[in-house]
Amino acid sequence: MKQAEQLATAYLALWNERDPKRRLDLLASNWTADARYADPLMKGVGAAEISALVGAVHDRFPAFRFRLTGAPDGFEDFARFSWAFGPEQGDAVVEGTDFVRQANGRIASVTGFLDRVPAEA
Amino acid sequence: MKQAEQLATAYLALWNERDPKRRLDLLASNWTADARYADPLMKGVGAAEISALVGAVHDRFPAFRFRLTGAPDGFEDFARFSWAFGPEQGDAVVEGTDFVRQANGRIASVTGFLDRVPAEA
Repeated sequence: MKQAEQLATAYLALWNERDPKRRLDLLASNWTADARYADPLMKGVGAAEISALVGAVHDRFPAFRFRLTGAPDGFEDFARFSWAFGPEQGDAVVEGTDFVRQANGRIASVTGFLDRVPAEA
Repeated sequence: MKQAEQLATAYLALWNERDPKRRLDLLASNWTADARYADPLMKGVGAAEISALVGAVHDRFPAFRFRLTGAPDGFEDFARFSWAFGPEQGDAVVEGTDFVRQANGRIASVTGFLDRVPAEA
């Protein structure tokens, strides 16, 4: 598996992790202590805040999962990949692309963009 | 015009600027002094290096131009947009997506990814 694909797979595993303790373990292992996450809807700095963002998504959409779409790619410390979020069985509801910067082999910064959101009611 | 679209339009105008003096003026006006540019093929820091990267592309592909594709989007200090590069009249040869981080209204960092490259001969 290519490095960018490994990164993306591990990253989405964090987003799919429902157990807060395991999320903090993953963040401690794979992210820098002052890592930053930001997308158009939310942002956080450090493991506690980022884990809380993930937990809030699980609370709101308990039956939804993230999955990788397309082929991740990267160079040097940079990677990007796209994902879909929706019911485990069924069509995705939201799609996005995340851009990651690593430092010393750990995730230092994630900036997320939304590629598809549900039409307004 | 939305903020991300203005940013992308100004950014591609720099890449299409053949005059080194005007490029340095654009970089001085719109980028931070220590701005970083990186893509899978090249990288540079600061106006002189970034202008030289743009110049090298013009030297190699003198009749090619960059144009915006799709709809740029952004939030806070972040933006992304996609572009195509090719002859002014004719199909694009290379396509890519750039992620931009701004600081105090200036471009501080650009990370470029390639979406389509010519098939290997």
